[in-house]
Amino acid sequence: MIVVMKAHAEESEIDAVVQRIQRLGFNTHLSRGVERTIIGIVGADHSLNPGNFEVLAGVERAVRVLHPFKIASRDFHPEDSVFEVSGVPVGGDHLTIMAGPCSVESREQLLETAAAVKEAGAHILRGGAYKPRTSPYSFQGLGLRGLEILGEAKERYGLPIVTEVMSPDLVPLVAEYADMLQIGARSMQNYALLQAVGKTNKPILLKRGMMSTMQEWLMAAEYILSNGNDRVALCERGIRTFEPYTRNTLDINAIPAMRTLTHLPIIGDPSHGTGKWELVTPVARAIIAAGANGLIVEVHPRPEEALSDGAQSLKPERFAGLVRQVRAIYDLLQEERHAEE
Amino acid sequence: MIVVMKAHAEESEIDAVVQRIQRLGFNTHLSRGVERTIIGIVGADHSLNPGNFEVLAGVERAVRVLHPFKIASRDFHPEDSVFEVSGVPVGGDHLTIMAGPCSVESREQLLETAAAVKEAGAHILRGGAYKPRTSPYSFQGLGLRGLEILGEAKERYGLPIVTEVMSPDLVPLVAEYADMLQIGARSMQNYALLQAVGKTNKPILLKRGMMSTMQEWLMAAEYILSNGNDRVALCERGIRTFEPYTRNTLDINAIPAMRTLTHLPIIGDPSHGTGKWELVTPVARAIIAAGANGLIVEVHPRPEEALSDGAQSLKPERFAGLVRQVRAIYDLLQEERHAEE
Amino acid sequence: MIVVMKAHAEESEIDAVVQRIQRLGFNTHLSRGVERTIIGIVGADHSLNPGNFEVLAGVERAVRVLHPFKIASRDFHPEDSVFEVSGVPVGGDHLTIMAGPCSVESREQLLETAAAVKEAGAHILRGGAYKPRTSPYSFQGLGLRGLEILGEAKERYGLPIVTEVMSPDLVPLVAEYADMLQIGARSMQNYALLQAVGKTNKPILLKRGMMSTMQEWLMAAEYILSNGNDRVALCERGIRTFEPYTRNTLDINAIPAMRTLTHLPIIGDPSHGTGKWELVTPVARAIIAAGANGLIVEVHPRPEEALSDGAQSLKPERFAGLVRQVRAIYDLLQEERHAEE
Amino acid sequence: MIVVMKAHAEESEIDAVVQRIQRLGFNTHLSRGVERTIIGIVGADHSLNPGNFEVLAGVERAVRVLHPFKIASRDFHPEDSVFEVSGVPVGGDHLTIMAGPCSVESREQLLETAAAVKEAGAHILRGGAYKPRTSPYSFQGLGLRGLEILGEAKERYGLPIVTEVMSPDLVPLVAEYADMLQIGARSMQNYALLQAVGKTNKPILLKRGMMSTMQEWLMAAEYILSNGNDRVALCERGIRTFEPYTRNTLDINAIPAMRTLTHLPIIGDPSHGTGKWELVTPVARAIIAAGANGLIVEVHPRPEEALSDGAQSLKPERFAGLVRQVRAIYDLLQEERHAEE
Repeated sequence: MIVVMKAHAEESEIDAVVQRIQRLGFNTHLSRGVERTIIGIVGADHSLNPGNFEVLAGVERAVRVLHPFKIASRDFHPEDSVFEVSGVPVGGDHLTIMAGPCSVESREQLLETAAAVKEAGAHILRGGAYKPRTSPYSFQGLGLRGLEILGEAKERYGLPIVTEVMSPDLVPLVAEYADMLQIGARSMQNYALLQAVGKTNKPILLKRGMMSTMQEWLMAAEYILSNGNDRVALCERGIRTFEPYTRNTLDINAIPAMRTLTHLPIIGDPSHGTGKWELVTPVARAIIAAGANGLIVEVHPRPEEALSDGAQSLKPERFAGLVRQVRAIYDLLQEERHAEE
Repeated sequence: MIVVMKAHAEESEIDAVVQRIQRLGFNTHLSRGVERTIIGIVGADHSLNPGNFEVLAGVERAVRVLHPFKIASRDFHPEDSVFEVSGVPVGGDHLTIMAGPCSVESREQLLETAAAVKEAGAHILRGGAYKPRTSPYSFQGLGLRGLEILGEAKERYGLPIVTEVMSPDLVPLVAEYADMLQIGARSMQNYALLQAVGKTNKPILLKRGMMSTMQEWLMAAEYILSNGNDRVALCERGIRTFEPYTRNTLDINAIPAMRTLTHLPIIGDPSHGTGKWELVTPVARAIIAAGANGLIVEVHPRPEEALSDGAQSLKPERFAGLVRQVRAIYDLLQEERHAEE
Repeated sequence: MIVVMKAHAEESEIDAVVQRIQRLGFNTHLSRGVERTIIGIVGADHSLNPGNFEVLAGVERAVRVLHPFKIASRDFHPEDSVFEVSGVPVGGDHLTIMAGPCSVESREQLLETAAAVKEAGAHILRGGAYKPRTSPYSFQGLGLRGLEILGEAKERYGLPIVTEVMSPDLVPLVAEYADMLQIGARSMQNYALLQAVGKTNKPILLKRGMMSTMQEWLMAAEYILSNGNDRVALCERGIRTFEPYTRNTLDINAIPAMRTLTHLPIIGDPSHGTGKWELVTPVARAIIAAGANGLIVEVHPRPEEALSDGAQSLKPERFAGLVRQVRAIYDLLQEERHAEE
Repeated sequence: MIVVMKAHAEESEIDAVVQRIQRLGFNTHLSRGVERTIIGIVGADHSLNPGNFEVLAGVERAVRVLHPFKIASRDFHPEDSVFEVSGVPVGGDHLTIMAGPCSVESREQLLETAAAVKEAGAHILRGGAYKPRTSPYSFQGLGLRGLEILGEAKERYGLPIVTEVMSPDLVPLVAEYADMLQIGARSMQNYALLQAVGKTNKPILLKRGMMSTMQEWLMAAEYILSNGNDRVALCERGIRTFEPYTRNTLDINAIPAMRTLTHLPIIGDPSHGTGKWELVTPVARAIIAAGANGLIVEVHPRPEEALSDGAQSLKPERFAGLVRQVRAIYDLLQEERHAEE
């Protein structure tokens, strides 16, 4: 069970709830957000009655949660979460498209791509400044210089920036430039990093680990949420299977499963999910048709020259076609939904 | 390389081509269909020039094929294959929907379901008479009685029948009742069975093995095609991964990948692909949005009473909603395609 | 629960037990072996008391079985199963080594290999006459001629033969030549085939499917056992994973797991389990150290010329080293076991 | 290609080699260890001749390396690496056994376990002070207090300590208490952490990611090695597969594969590799029989009370049996090896 305190509940009220729970023989876990404190009851709490807590001073509501993820669970928050990334809405009825190159390679490359993806209808610009690379001998990203270039593109084209942060000590620096912090697939269970970004006030894009179950993914989100940051979007980017034809296997089942299990927005990444540019547009259509809230797509003006992920990057004109197609499918589904209501 | 003989080429012409190939030091593989014979050249044939074969008597064309699957390859047959299942077209521009219960359980259950799926817009009726079950102690299907019930439903509702055949000796019997023979996932590499159905004149629905790569799947199709039966549709039904939340992981990447690699129609199975009825409709939308030629869906009037696969079966009214939604997406994609031409 | 009838119990006694069970509201499943009939109680039978059945005429014992596999379960048969393959014991305290080429390629190749593996200490000769091949264009085995060659080798060197049978209609022919019938990994869920070999009186080597769980594997064994054939050995030959360096991943955990779950002998196949000859000997040592009852190893006098599986075949002299090493480890474990008793 | 400079080569000599390489059109990557600098040549260097570099001043040798991992490759360092962990040798001819509880839970629990594992023959004490837990609500380890308890156990029983470090900022603190730093499976691609431990002078135990290929694992080792720390042992701890019976699937093939591909010691973890205590001893025997240099085993005096991993922990008396058995197999293999020489 989780007890949600009213916004700006007083310390004494929080204390009283905690003591009540402990007197009943349970441990508590406090998540203190900027506005609101959530008290989790740890342990086999089936015997407790939410009504008995809702009468206490300062309590907004008490919710039974069957899943091991609590704050991420739709039981806890039945409505879709919607939040803004520097003015761009994510979640609920909004279709959010993030696009840009795998890595920031140069000022020219990034500005050219930013202009093109904006023109094609993207809402948020992606681009890696710090790159997790399998080999220590591969290009590791431009680092701070990459962030500065992203900052220039943001200013010039008015696109918020999403970029990866790979270690806790870099969180403050990356957060200075980024509007949304990306946690990469390899970092999904980097708990120190999850805690660090959970303490910022930046929206987070949490990629699924390539070897992670849906439950582990939601538990990773729970690390961020329970540190007080409630603006988390999940990103399905493909899982590892035995199939060698594609780089990863995009888990399309995860899209509607996440809509059921959690209130957090779900974004699909058809670029990493397939690893082959010719599969990106059809799989992007599938992701949106399955009910996702948005996409993140790798776009490069000259994929054959890309320093990383060239094989899965779209040229800008193909990306424009992708946006047109997914927009049409999204609008169709919205009509269907409204017709049902 | 593959040499395609003209329809009704003479034996002496075929012999002459075979001898020419053998004199060049290669082995041959003959696929004799009802109308046409195809001569495969086995071995490292990069040095051969197709033009040198196209001048021989009785030869229609010679095609270089890089993949290990030859007749299944789009290099061999660049246009989409389209064929009919007792009057219902499959492939190309057609959207084909197959639906029905997992198993034929009784005359009443099947007729009720057949009426409902026809009403909802299905084109072909599915239903298992011989069931592959993990346990020897589980319900194994009604066998011949099941086939007879399917035959009655076909007559009454005018729906062609697709049903599984599990062993070579049952092929003639099942083919008497079925309009399309299904090869189940567990049988995808049952080569004796593939050869047996390859020698019939029935269309085949070839399900992907739960542990099979795309290449192995196309090689299984090649077993059927090379025995002379060129009416094969592929069915993506989910692969086995580490994810326990869903019964299988529907490999959405395989849909556009198959459109690229082969000319054979590709059908998606969101019921086995997810194992949970609440994921079936969104994943069905995704399958069509990714470019599939159709769907096969499990429908049961009372899923909670089903003898098999109840958890993944849709009630008829939900299935009707699925058909409406996927039809709308399909039409949208067709418009898009025609606009491009 | 399973009710085991006494050897040669009378029909009327069997009938009486069946009727008693049915009157209690349960279905029955009869397994009629040559000597003994086993009556399985199907359904949620927790409420039944074995003692109430053991008092009936003709009943030897009644056993509660928690697993879905009944006859295969160690609950049902607590002692190790031991049986003979034409005089060679398999199971229990015996170390059984099967070896030979992947395919019978010619009389010379097979006789040469048979002589070498016998000399090196093998007990049973393996060799494929009918080969399951991914491609219809690959060498499919010598068929009947291959069986005849195996027969000649058996006569000359006194080695029993294990060879694969791929379809039900070939069971009688293969059983004429083979001392043990192999069910290949791709056929593990070919239920018609499992039933057919379950009705023979030949020992069976049941390979694990490359993406089959341990439970599915034991259920496949149950298909054979419940058809009356109780001489089944299981063969762990590697499962399919994401790792591309090896052809399969030998599941070493399955060896002790099978010793716990079932009384059936367990044999390891380090050749298919690794796909690389240089890993075969160390993995063979591991299989025996983990508690397996034996090995099946691919040996070829000239691996570089093999028509199939050359990369994973050992030369005879290396195989002799393997036998010496695994024998030493096996003896050590036997001493340890006896010291414990 | 890699150019290994002589111990204490002068800066000017290093510079000269770097400039020579750059003039030939290649980039360089410098790994500066305490004694020795290694210059990696980045890019398609097949055309270069090692002999041309070995004549330069200060160069010890130049080695062609085909794998993407360079310093980890056996081409680079053909002999087994052997190093000490506070006096305990790891690698080469030594059998090294690490044991202890999953987590340090209390002073009493740890001291009791330390005494027992020492008595049973363990060389190094394991125990987690900082625990990576899937849930933010689970016990996260005792932190600094856990390190202090480990320090006390070390002093009292003379056992060096191996314990996990989860983030770069904790490296200095953990390194104060630990004799060997463990990088957990979830951190295998935490590059900031790999770089941080690569800059320490502590031996590293690098666990394989649960869905990492062997090549990715060796690339992770390369991150540590290329930062100047050459004391890295690899730990196979099971990979994630579709099999639900065991927690992970210990990849036994990886043991001999690592012996071939790299000179680094390889340690097996049968506790995480199986997740079931009754499989731990047989799989431990298999790991050693396959050629590993040692084991890491979870031992708890009262597994049923453990705060984590109770199901896979051995009681001390069972662990003593394990040590006796693996020691016997190890000695047997050593005799075999020496007999061959």
